[in-house]
Amino acid sequence: MDKIDIEKIRNDFPILKKKINDEKLIYLDNAATVQMPKEVLTACDTFYHDAYSNVHRSSHTLAIKATQIYETVRKKVQKFINAADTSEIIFTSGCTASLNLVALSWGESFISAGDEIVITAMEHHSNLIPWQQLALRKKAKLKFIELTPDGRLDMNDAAQKITSKTKLVAAVHVSNVLGVINPIKKLASLAHKVGAIMVVDGAQAVGHIPIDVQQLEADFYAFSGHKMLAPTGVGVLYGRKYLLEKMTPVMYGGEMIEHVSRFTSSWAEIPFKFEAGTPNIAGVRGLGAAIDYLNKISFQTITEYEQELTDCALNALKKITALTIYGPLTSKERLPIFSFNLDKIHAHDLATILDAEGVEVRAGHHCAEPLMTDLGVIATVRASFYIYNTEKDIDILVEAIEKAKDFFNHGN
Amino acid sequence: MDKIDIEKIRNDFPILKKKINDEKLIYLDNAATVQMPKEVLTACDTFYHDAYSNVHRSSHTLAIKATQIYETVRKKVQKFINAADTSEIIFTSGCTASLNLVALSWGESFISAGDEIVITAMEHHSNLIPWQQLALRKKAKLKFIELTPDGRLDMNDAAQKITSKTKLVAAVHVSNVLGVINPIKKLASLAHKVGAIMVVDGAQAVGHIPIDVQQLEADFYAFSGHKMLAPTGVGVLYGRKYLLEKMTPVMYGGEMIEHVSRFTSSWAEIPFKFEAGTPNIAGVRGLGAAIDYLNKISFQTITEYEQELTDCALNALKKITALTIYGPLTSKERLPIFSFNLDKIHAHDLATILDAEGVEVRAGHHCAEPLMTDLGVIATVRASFYIYNTEKDIDILVEAIEKAKDFFNHGN
Repeated sequence: MDKIDIEKIRNDFPILKKKINDEKLIYLDNAATVQMPKEVLTACDTFYHDAYSNVHRSSHTLAIKATQIYETVRKKVQKFINAADTSEIIFTSGCTASLNLVALSWGESFISAGDEIVITAMEHHSNLIPWQQLALRKKAKLKFIELTPDGRLDMNDAAQKITSKTKLVAAVHVSNVLGVINPIKKLASLAHKVGAIMVVDGAQAVGHIPIDVQQLEADFYAFSGHKMLAPTGVGVLYGRKYLLEKMTPVMYGGEMIEHVSRFTSSWAEIPFKFEAGTPNIAGVRGLGAAIDYLNKISFQTITEYEQELTDCALNALKKITALTIYGPLTSKERLPIFSFNLDKIHAHDLATILDAEGVEVRAGHHCAEPLMTDLGVIATVRASFYIYNTEKDIDILVEAIEKAKDFFNHGN
Repeated sequence: MDKIDIEKIRNDFPILKKKINDEKLIYLDNAATVQMPKEVLTACDTFYHDAYSNVHRSSHTLAIKATQIYETVRKKVQKFINAADTSEIIFTSGCTASLNLVALSWGESFISAGDEIVITAMEHHSNLIPWQQLALRKKAKLKFIELTPDGRLDMNDAAQKITSKTKLVAAVHVSNVLGVINPIKKLASLAHKVGAIMVVDGAQAVGHIPIDVQQLEADFYAFSGHKMLAPTGVGVLYGRKYLLEKMTPVMYGGEMIEHVSRFTSSWAEIPFKFEAGTPNIAGVRGLGAAIDYLNKISFQTITEYEQELTDCALNALKKITALTIYGPLTSKERLPIFSFNLDKIHAHDLATILDAEGVEVRAGHHCAEPLMTDLGVIATVRASFYIYNTEKDIDILVEAIEKAKDFFNHGN
């Protein structure tokens, strides 16, 4: 395996040369959005200069070129996550839209009163509220798989919660708060044993670890472009062909139909019946370029480097007295996403001090309010790393936290 | 009023210098997607290099900058369509998503069995199927306002069809097939007189004519970025505040909530409760730049120039023997979108010949199958113009059609 060439990678990301508050930018908000390399920026720009047109609609040269580019990316995504067929890849406006599509289509048709939907206690709102509201509409029961004290999924509880009444299990692949990688394949086995389907929110996993939807036994797998080097406003829903085929569309419009008359319509084949309206074409082009970029580095290199960052950050953060870290304190099955609080200091105040040092972290409930409640906090600070971050960034983060601690202690 | 500086404008659109099949590109598929000027391309690119971050989520410098940019565009859109309040502007992934949002939220809550939904015979599928399927779900009645023989909306029929049972009237502002501008204000008056709401599909109008949603008396007005110089994958739904406030969200996820617990959730204020998940941030930035660009030219200049193009094209096309033009043959209340067929020649064959000449038009049903049925055709060729097109383009189009005619006649 090649050792990662971190300077070469950093050079690919123009924004990293930026100054924030006169300090070097240390971008540690990657769990919200990762930055885009030149390759992706150029791919989008070239598309606009060279082949910009709508897709699937016209037969002229530009439109054919645009459609070819679009469908090439679909094929690329299929290979990237090892789907069995390109028709299983639906382009959406993002992971949230992907998950809502499953709830509004599969959920609306196949969940009935008395059925059980099982999710985990660490879900992002986008993989919680769609099921919560579906359960309320359908008088179905929503159940939560609890966490172990060290912030991992309690698989004994999972085995208890998933029962013969369970119709759907939904889980985040990697927690956006705790950084933990969930054992999706084991969950999927439990789900399938009782005839339930397995829905996975892959937002924080894709771009960090290799995804093989067949190996994971996922029935649906959702993710966004902007957390894997592509632009915002584009995402993917993978779904097994036989499931997608029996689902009805949620959005209606251009290019998702077979025939339309005044009072009835029939739908196009999958994936098109789920892609009403003009899609984010340049965003899809960017997604293709992001996959190329990731493949060029290789997932072996990426995961090994993220493992190093995780080890290094955990060691450094654990040494800070008065710092509470939420989530596993060992680097096993874990990505470099770290949520923490400094004794008695509000998360937003800590984040503001870090920002003054050029360290961009997020403070808040991270769209996971029920998890915050379980953790007994209102908010945490979250530092999340990606392939262009360095051990030096960790040093600067730690120094900035120590500085903040001094600042606030001084006031006491 | 300034006369349009067409050469200056054409210089702003890099793609227009492109060759298609060794011929100069004559881009006449603007009703599908308009091209993007350098200003918009640069705005998106600068955003990625300078302020790229997620919006509304974090309090660090980059995130604050991204959020400011995003909310500045919302204000810009408000002024652009003269909405009463910025909270009435919802960013979506496109016009189709905007219209489906109204059907899935307002429609699902406020349409009941026996209610009537009135639309027109010239709707695009995106403003037809959502209502058709809603009517089927709710056992409501779907009614169509017919067209006059010259392809305009029959307002006498509108007055007949809109009754005390009507709860919603939906109409396209400018037909994507016929080019005709519909009298939205008059339709809205008829709708309001019986207590119905007025939904407008503005996809083909915005960027061509000035839009004043208050003057039009529209209750909802939907449009896309990519038909007004902005990127694909971004759109707007305007809705009156009192209507949006009583509507429930359709998509659930990050940043649309007030509070979330395991079993219940409450929603954020408008417009945020309708903007679940990470939006197309660069797309929104591009939308802002597109508005600036249009304002710089001024709508008076744009509409006057499009009127000239319409006159010129109608005159030229009418002279082609064996050419049937669908839609009004006078330039009054009409935009330069022309659908036509050449006797006995399939629309796709004609489009292919035009493409060989570098003339990019669309052939097909234009996502308006019921209108095609009414016109007695399966498909038409459509040439649609924008501000960078010239009278020379019309000449080349006409020459290419004549060439095609000779080619096919030769075969007879």
